[in-house]
Amino acid sequence: MNTTLSTGIKNARNVRSYMYGFGQLGELRNILHSCRVADSPAVYFIDHYFQANGLPAGLEVDASKDIVIFIDSTHEPKTGQVNALRDEVLSRARKMPCAIVGLGGGTTMDVAKAVSNLLTNGGNAEDYQGWDLVKKPGIFKIAVPTISGTGAESTRTCVMTNPVNGLKLGMNSDYTVFDQIILDPQVTASVPRNQYFHTGMDAYIHCLESANGSYRNAVGDAFGEQTLDLCRKVFQSEEMLSDDNRARLMVASYMGGCAIATSYVGLVHPLSAGLSVVLGVHHCVGNCIVMRAMEEFYPEGFREFWSMVEQQGVDIPRGICDNLTDEQYEKLYLSTIIHEKPLTNALGENFKEILTFEKAVSLFRKM
Amino acid sequence: MNTTLSTGIKNARNVRSYMYGFGQLGELRNILHSCRVADSPAVYFIDHYFQANGLPAGLEVDASKDIVIFIDSTHEPKTGQVNALRDEVLSRARKMPCAIVGLGGGTTMDVAKAVSNLLTNGGNAEDYQGWDLVKKPGIFKIAVPTISGTGAESTRTCVMTNPVNGLKLGMNSDYTVFDQIILDPQVTASVPRNQYFHTGMDAYIHCLESANGSYRNAVGDAFGEQTLDLCRKVFQSEEMLSDDNRARLMVASYMGGCAIATSYVGLVHPLSAGLSVVLGVHHCVGNCIVMRAMEEFYPEGFREFWSMVEQQGVDIPRGICDNLTDEQYEKLYLSTIIHEKPLTNALGENFKEILTFEKAVSLFRKM
Repeated sequence: MNTTLSTGIKNARNVRSYMYGFGQLGELRNILHSCRVADSPAVYFIDHYFQANGLPAGLEVDASKDIVIFIDSTHEPKTGQVNALRDEVLSRARKMPCAIVGLGGGTTMDVAKAVSNLLTNGGNAEDYQGWDLVKKPGIFKIAVPTISGTGAESTRTCVMTNPVNGLKLGMNSDYTVFDQIILDPQVTASVPRNQYFHTGMDAYIHCLESANGSYRNAVGDAFGEQTLDLCRKVFQSEEMLSDDNRARLMVASYMGGCAIATSYVGLVHPLSAGLSVVLGVHHCVGNCIVMRAMEEFYPEGFREFWSMVEQQGVDIPRGICDNLTDEQYEKLYLSTIIHEKPLTNALGENFKEILTFEKAVSLFRKM
Repeated sequence: MNTTLSTGIKNARNVRSYMYGFGQLGELRNILHSCRVADSPAVYFIDHYFQANGLPAGLEVDASKDIVIFIDSTHEPKTGQVNALRDEVLSRARKMPCAIVGLGGGTTMDVAKAVSNLLTNGGNAEDYQGWDLVKKPGIFKIAVPTISGTGAESTRTCVMTNPVNGLKLGMNSDYTVFDQIILDPQVTASVPRNQYFHTGMDAYIHCLESANGSYRNAVGDAFGEQTLDLCRKVFQSEEMLSDDNRARLMVASYMGGCAIATSYVGLVHPLSAGLSVVLGVHHCVGNCIVMRAMEEFYPEGFREFWSMVEQQGVDIPRGICDNLTDEQYEKLYLSTIIHEKPLTNALGENFKEILTFEKAVSLFRKM
């Protein structure tokens, strides 16, 4: 066991406050009331799913005061998109907003974090990609996760890509942590089965990687073990989408996010990042696809993962790397191998001797 | 499973930041540096153990600027003691302190929380015994737990007794939560075996009671389950005081405190409170004593607890209620039965029909 937090985060910042419970989304109104200054607006970033399907029950938006912006979560956030959203807020709000609400999945919550930071710190999103570059607290920000697994509700980053230089890196900062989160398992009742599984497994896979890595510590282990246990309860049950299981997965997502702060991922996430960058595969389903090739690295996790896939009867895409060009394989390799810290955690300092180009291609072909 | 947090705390406040690691106590200096304003002093409340045995390694106090007050933790805090400590700080500090450090066990940390609140809110300790009576944030406060189990480092209360009216009740408030905690398992290396066990079991017993209660929710369950797992790892191992196990128990204490925020205790804590009030028994050893009488209420926990006592070869006092006067039994019963919420959680609304005076006496006689 390592003796200190080994992720460069010596001092882990918690989410300030959390509410939990079926129907707690209705409390959002009171939270906003308590932080509202005069007629300053609240800004809602809401996943576009709810534009097509109606707002979740219990959400009351005052359209005369507040600003609602739907977020297209088809693709993960880009720096230009974050800047444009900041501009839209500034042009529509007559005053500085009193609060930013991110209601959706990882993409929507990350956008909320990023815009909150930009509104008070000035500059553009790309100026803050890195570690501890944000200098002031952002606007009071509230997360309402509507799908469970990524842990964006509890982490200190907001992932985004700058298409100009290809950099995929968040604003890693204590100021990126939400002030308030509302965990209401009622809002995840309508998530489709496949997406529920893929996203939930982000928490499971992260903690599987950490538990098998060489950088470990007692705090990360404890949050990680509990996350894994909760995921097992959910995905080894008869009905993974039951009320109790949606509640458990919501807690697993929160705790998995807490685990991230104090641990490293391993081999799955770097390979999955390759799939994202080169083939545009979404992060969560990408992790599941990578698991096809993980038997030799995580034998127990591999068996457990695929038994849960089978039990729940969900689909994991297959063969997406079968017939790529040499150039594509090269790109996949390069965008995997740059993730040095997690690969060192998984394979040791000489990870390039294990994960050679040929080895990586054979893994991608298994997917 | 209950559908919302059911402890009256709808919105759970987290500790703002935590550090973890062997030797992290050395970081306290940097934390104080970053919050120090001009020549404002830091106030250290330190358990009197360290007065006799020397300060823990890594702790550097600047005696020219800062104020050190040793806390006699023989008895649990009283309101008058808190007021007197507040007065001592005010008379010794030329300026309002920049930070309050509580370095010790539950008593010392609770004193730090209470004095921090009093310094900014005015009035006396007894004015804030209750729920949400504190109106302003206290002085920036930092906990360095030197023994693991009570969870005082992560809870929103600071238990104290007002001898005038007998009220044992803390300042339950979001403002009572620490801003910073430093979890350094190095500092628990010198804790005596019996005390290490008794105090660690406070976390175990709390979570055992919650898990068997009728008020439950997914967040409290998750923190509680992980706390129990960690305690089992520690107390079912060959050497409960090893580095890894002290690290685990420190995390269990923190998570057990988080569990408290969203759950209720059961039958053990009310009976133990009786022992405290009537016989002056310390909270943690009191819980262990009560476990002698818990076979019919928590059969699995009973067996597990006593097998851990046996494995670790620790002492639990016996027979302390054997030869009491009728008046003493009466007092024990009354100071147990007033804890209506936990008793309802454990036994149902008609708990007085189960826990009659005769039944309670038979339980006390088993201890």
